[in-house]
Amino acid sequence: MRDGLIQNLNEIFQAKARLGIMTVLTSMGDSDFLTIKKHLDLTDGNLSAHLRVLEEAGYIQIEKKFVKRKPKTTCRLTPEGREAFLHYLKQLERIIQLARKEEE
Amino acid sequence: MRDGLIQNLNEIFQAKARLGIMTVLTSMGDSDFLTIKKHLDLTDGNLSAHLRVLEEAGYIQIEKKFVKRKPKTTCRLTPEGREAFLHYLKQLERIIQLARKEEE
Repeated sequence: MRDGLIQNLNEIFQAKARLGIMTVLTSMGDSDFLTIKKHLDLTDGNLSAHLRVLEEAGYIQIEKKFVKRKPKTTCRLTPEGREAFLHYLKQLERIIQLARKEEE
Repeated sequence: MRDGLIQNLNEIFQAKARLGIMTVLTSMGDSDFLTIKKHLDLTDGNLSAHLRVLEEAGYIQIEKKFVKRKPKTTCRLTPEGREAFLHYLKQLERIIQLARKEEE
């Protein structure tokens, strides 16, 4: 495939849950745990695990604090995360264009 | 996420190797094993395994025959495979649009 287009897709974003988390954070901005969970229909454990992968990659920051004595977890994209995800979306677009070439 | 957009993505196409195979077959038409392998930089065993998954899903047909005494394996999309993949590409486009909403 042209210059490794598909081979170079970032594996971190290939998992549907992480694609979902990044889509929520890119489109809606900083979001708390419950909001992301509601949008993606994931279990707590599953969402936590995927958030950790994104945090370890340096793509998101996770802040835990108490609001009215209840714990609240807020997630935000880092500049690196935003850049990496926008690059990923561009690659997906090129793959879609390539796949549709025949139809043009 | 809006009507399960990401949850409903077809897992079969989420693997990069299978996304690659479908992209080659959609853009270039029927292709032989060596052509697909060259484009995607996969090992024989790996490519065979992914082709088998796509065949078992009913998305491609695999034909093996001898040409000048050498075995030749040709892969082609089934109508179901083409339809499922074009649907997948449309879903990806909607996700890209959604993620970029903030930027508009």
